[in-house]
This record gives sequence, structure tokens and C-alpha cells, in this order.
Amino acid sequence: MYSLEELDKIVARSVSSVCGTAEPENLYAPIRYMMSIGGKRIRPKMCLLVYSLFHNEIGKEVLYPALSLEMFHEFTLVHDDIMDRSETRRGNLTVYRKWSQNTAILSGDVMSIAAYDLLSCASDKYLRKAMEIFTKMAVEVCEGQQYDMDYEDMPFITMDDYMKMIGRKTAVLIACSAKMGALLSGAEESACDALYEFGYQLGLAFQITDDYLDTFGNEKTFGKKIGGDIINNKKTWLLVEAFRLAGADRKKELSSILSLGPERSVEKIERMQKLYIDLGVKNAASAAAEECHSKAMAALDTLSLNESQRELLNEFARELTSRDK
Amino acid sequence: MYSLEELDKIVARSVSSVCGTAEPENLYAPIRYMMSIGGKRIRPKMCLLVYSLFHNEIGKEVLYPALSLEMFHEFTLVHDDIMDRSETRRGNLTVYRKWSQNTAILSGDVMSIAAYDLLSCASDKYLRKAMEIFTKMAVEVCEGQQYDMDYEDMPFITMDDYMKMIGRKTAVLIACSAKMGALLSGAEESACDALYEFGYQLGLAFQITDDYLDTFGNEKTFGKKIGGDIINNKKTWLLVEAFRLAGADRKKELSSILSLGPERSVEKIERMQKLYIDLGVKNAASAAAEECHSKAMAALDTLSLNESQRELLNEFARELTSRDK
Repeated sequence: MYSLEELDKIVARSVSSVCGTAEPENLYAPIRYMMSIGGKRIRPKMCLLVYSLFHNEIGKEVLYPALSLEMFHEFTLVHDDIMDRSETRRGNLTVYRKWSQNTAILSGDVMSIAAYDLLSCASDKYLRKAMEIFTKMAVEVCEGQQYDMDYEDMPFITMDDYMKMIGRKTAVLIACSAKMGALLSGAEESACDALYEFGYQLGLAFQITDDYLDTFGNEKTFGKKIGGDIINNKKTWLLVEAFRLAGADRKKELSSILSLGPERSVEKIERMQKLYIDLGVKNAASAAAEECHSKAMAALDTLSLNESQRELLNEFARELTSRDK
Repeated sequence: MYSLEELDKIVARSVSSVCGTAEPENLYAPIRYMMSIGGKRIRPKMCLLVYSLFHNEIGKEVLYPALSLEMFHEFTLVHDDIMDRSETRRGNLTVYRKWSQNTAILSGDVMSIAAYDLLSCASDKYLRKAMEIFTKMAVEVCEGQQYDMDYEDMPFITMDDYMKMIGRKTAVLIACSAKMGALLSGAEESACDALYEFGYQLGLAFQITDDYLDTFGNEKTFGKKIGGDIINNKKTWLLVEAFRLAGADRKKELSSILSLGPERSVEKIERMQKLYIDLGVKNAASAAAEECHSKAMAALDTLSLNESQRELLNEFARELTSRDK
């Protein structure tokens, strides 16, 4: 078993090794850039963490498939940033803004292929199954992004719509990461499924927490401006729940807030925060994330884990869902 | 062994079966559209043709990998059309014009994943190797597109630059299609390599012919307007060769033609056609395509093919390189 710090180091060291120094430069420089500015490496860490529950050594037959999950994630970000016209990511210019849209499309395409290349380092015994769960996940992530875009044009979505969207856009990749680690460690199918559910529920908790922090987080520790989702009328857990709970009067207030333009964004954020608090949506969001976290831990009950294994997974889960950045 | 007509029918029938009817509609409708308007199906046909040299039955363990090559090709077209701002393809609106750019990016992404899904129908024995040659090809195709875009900003490229670009952008996919058919039929590595070379040289001939027809083709049978490459100053085989052959005087005429704007496109096309004829570039292009075709056929010499096998490959090669549409 490895500590989370040790896994951090393994991932950090290996990420840079997979970006290559190939030509043409205009194709590969954006890939190196994107992989170097990148985040918390949750997905490869999840994969290696689960694998290391059952194995003491991390070889390339799990390390590269773990990195394929990160490569795929970063690929989706490169393309999402074009679609969402996002200027910055993690405090840096997005690929399409730093280079060009065409470069971002093409470099992203290579990253998705590179993800399959890394995945193919799985040993013969697991290659087909690894491809199967990876491809299912990859398609679902694209479907999630499509639902997210479809929802932009809809005045109203249900909580079921929302959960379907974040389930695909966010949760399945974290779920697949856990399952990949289990699969490659030779775990039984029931254990693979339990760990998928663990990752899936954590993924939901992760996204609901993200929605919460965008409205109620601490700007310094969250790492980006508070209120972006409110300004953009983004269909977050908070907004969907507010629609569900609001009576006639507050539906009117909700509509009024949503109609405020960018020139009144300070007022817009304050009024929406107040409405969320008054409706109990703020507390409900925390509770919903906490419930997903509990379900994630409960999914582990069918596995015969010892205390220290369970504690390590719980520590990782906490890192994900109470993150402040 | 199947006739080319039989292979046509098999491919046509199966292509429609791989597009699915899944949700969300906005994601999958463009994929069905793109696959339904699509072209000559050269790549899956090449794969099945080579396979059927050695096998009498075409099962799904070769049919789906063959279709993965078509799916990948169509994926690159969907993204290329965004990058090149192309309005129409095969007489129909391009995906990004018919829907939106975001839809074209995301549907294209799903197509690249779907290509790997189809590829994974290869049997256990060949799956790893099939992924290896597919991924190598896929990366090279993206590199080719990057070179093509890089060249747009360069005043001048050499014939080596040009051949590197079309080698990757066009030839490796046709080469991979031939090699895939050989691999999945259980052919030896040397035979796989010979058939790769066969496909590669044909791919070069195919692209040089395409360049030729864009300038000297028959508008009716070629299926699109003649002279598009000239109007856009595209770095075709003809232009690169003209630069190589032109003396000082004709370099001046060449520069003068290249500087003509779109309002003088009729004059531009006529003067460039004349220059190509005067410099011998027109005939040289035909000869160059013919030479690649000969090299393709010569690559088959190491294989112990009977007359009818060789004749079938030659018939297919002719279809590719003397095509008038």
C-alpha cells in the first residue's frame, strides 16, 4: 500500500514522461503545456490507489493505464474550453486562447488517441476489458457534455436531468478510474463493480461540492472567482434545487435574478446567494454531497478491506469532497 | 475471395448498422448524417479486400475493425472541415455548418472513440497489434493535418515537405487499412509490411491524383468545382513541383499568379493551368502518380499471390488512382 503523498509523487513524476518531444512542435507543445499546468491528478491517483490496495508494486502495466485516464481528462478540458469559450484554466490561458482554436482541436484529438496508447500498456489478460470500460466511460463523458450544452438552451431542468448530466460528465470518469485500478489488480467482478460505485458516488459528491463552492466558497482557497455559475445562469445543483423548492413568490424572484445582465453581476450574486440560503438550498447542497460521500463509503462494505485500507480510501474521498481549491 | 462489387455491398450494408440510435440526439444525429453521406469507403474496402485474399468468410472480427477505419476517417473529416472552414462536403453541408461548431467538435470526438470501440472487435490474438498499428496511424494522420496547416503560413515548401505531409495525412490510413486486413487474416509480418507499402504507395498516388484532378479534372465527373486549390494557393504536388522547376522568369509569373485575389479567380485558374502545362508539371503529376502506382504493385512481388489475387488488387488500385470522382 502507498500513502497518498507517495502516489502524488509517482503520478507527478510520470505525467511529464508521457508528453513526448515529437514533431510537429505546434501539435505537441500544447499537449505538454496542458499536462504541465494540470490540477490534482485525481483520476490516475484513484486508479493507483485502488490498485495498490491489492498490490505492493506499481509497474507500467498499471501506471500507464492510470495516466491514460488523466490524458483523456485533459483532452476533454482542451475541447470543452473551446466549446465554452473559456479564457483561462487553473490560472493559465486555455490552449485555444494561447495558440488557436484549430490547434486546440487537433492537439486534443491527439490526446484522445494518446490516451488509448497509454491504456494499451495493460497486460494481455486485461487489455480487452480495460478498453471496454474505458470506451464506455469515454462515450458517456461526451454524452454528458452534450447534455450540458443542451441544457443551456432549456429554461428549466429537473434534478433527474441534472444528475444524469453530472453522472456522465464527471462521475463516470472517476468511477472508471477506480474500476480500472481494481480490474488491473485482478480483483473479482463484484469488487470492480463496488469500486466503480465508490468512484461514481464520489464523483457526484465532487461535482455537487464544486457547484457549492462556486457560489459559497472562499475565493482564495477555491482558486477562482466566486459567482461565475450565477452570472452565467449555469444549471447547477443549487439552481435546480432552488427551482424545485421555490413557491410562486420565490419563483418570481428567481426569474428576476436570472434576467439580470452582466452589468449587475454583484447584485445578481448577492441576491442569488440570499435566495439559496433562504430556501435552504445552501445547506441541502452540503447534505447532498455528504450523502453521496456516505454512499461511496457504503459501497465498500461488500469488500473485505482492513481498517487501514478503508481509512486510506476515506482519506482520499475526503480530499476530493471537502477540497477547498 | 470476394469481388469488388460484393465488398461494396458488404460495406454499404454494415456502415449504417454502426451509427446507433442512442441519446442525446444532438450528439448522434451528426454521426449518422456523416456516415450516411459518405464517399467511396476505400479504407474498409481495402481492409476487407486484403483479408479476403486469405480468407473466404468475412466475420465481425474483421468487419468491425474495417469499419473502424472508416469511422476514424469520417471523424477526421468532421474536424478538418471546422479547421478549414469548409462549407460543403460531397455536395452536402458539413457537420459544423449544418449544426454548429461545438456539435462538430463533440460528435467528432465520439466518432474517434467509436472507432476504437469497433477496432476492439478484433479477436484476442490480434487485438494488441491491431491497436498498435491503428494508434500509430491515427497519430500520424493528426501530424499530417498539422503539417498541412503549418504549410499554409509558409511561402514555400520542398517536395520532401509535401511528401511527408501527404504521407501522413492520406497515405498512412490507406496503408494501415491494408495492413489491418493482412494482420487479422493471420498473415506473416513480412506480408503485413508488404501490404502496408502497397497501401502507402497507393495512398500517395491517390493524393497526387486528387491534386491533379482539382486543377485538370472534369468538373462533372470529379464532383466539385475545378480550381479550388489554385484559388486558395494550396500547396499541392503541382505547385510544389512548379516551384522546383521554374526558372527566374517563371518564378516571377508564379508569384504574380499567387498574388491574384478571389475577384480574379477565373484568370488565376487559367494562368496557373497554362503555367503548369508549360513547365511540364501537368504531365509530371500524372507520371508521379503512375510511378507510385507501380511501386504499389511492385510491393506485392514478395507475396506469393496467384494471378486472380493480383488482378483483384490491381483492379482496386486502378479504381483508386484513375478515379474521376
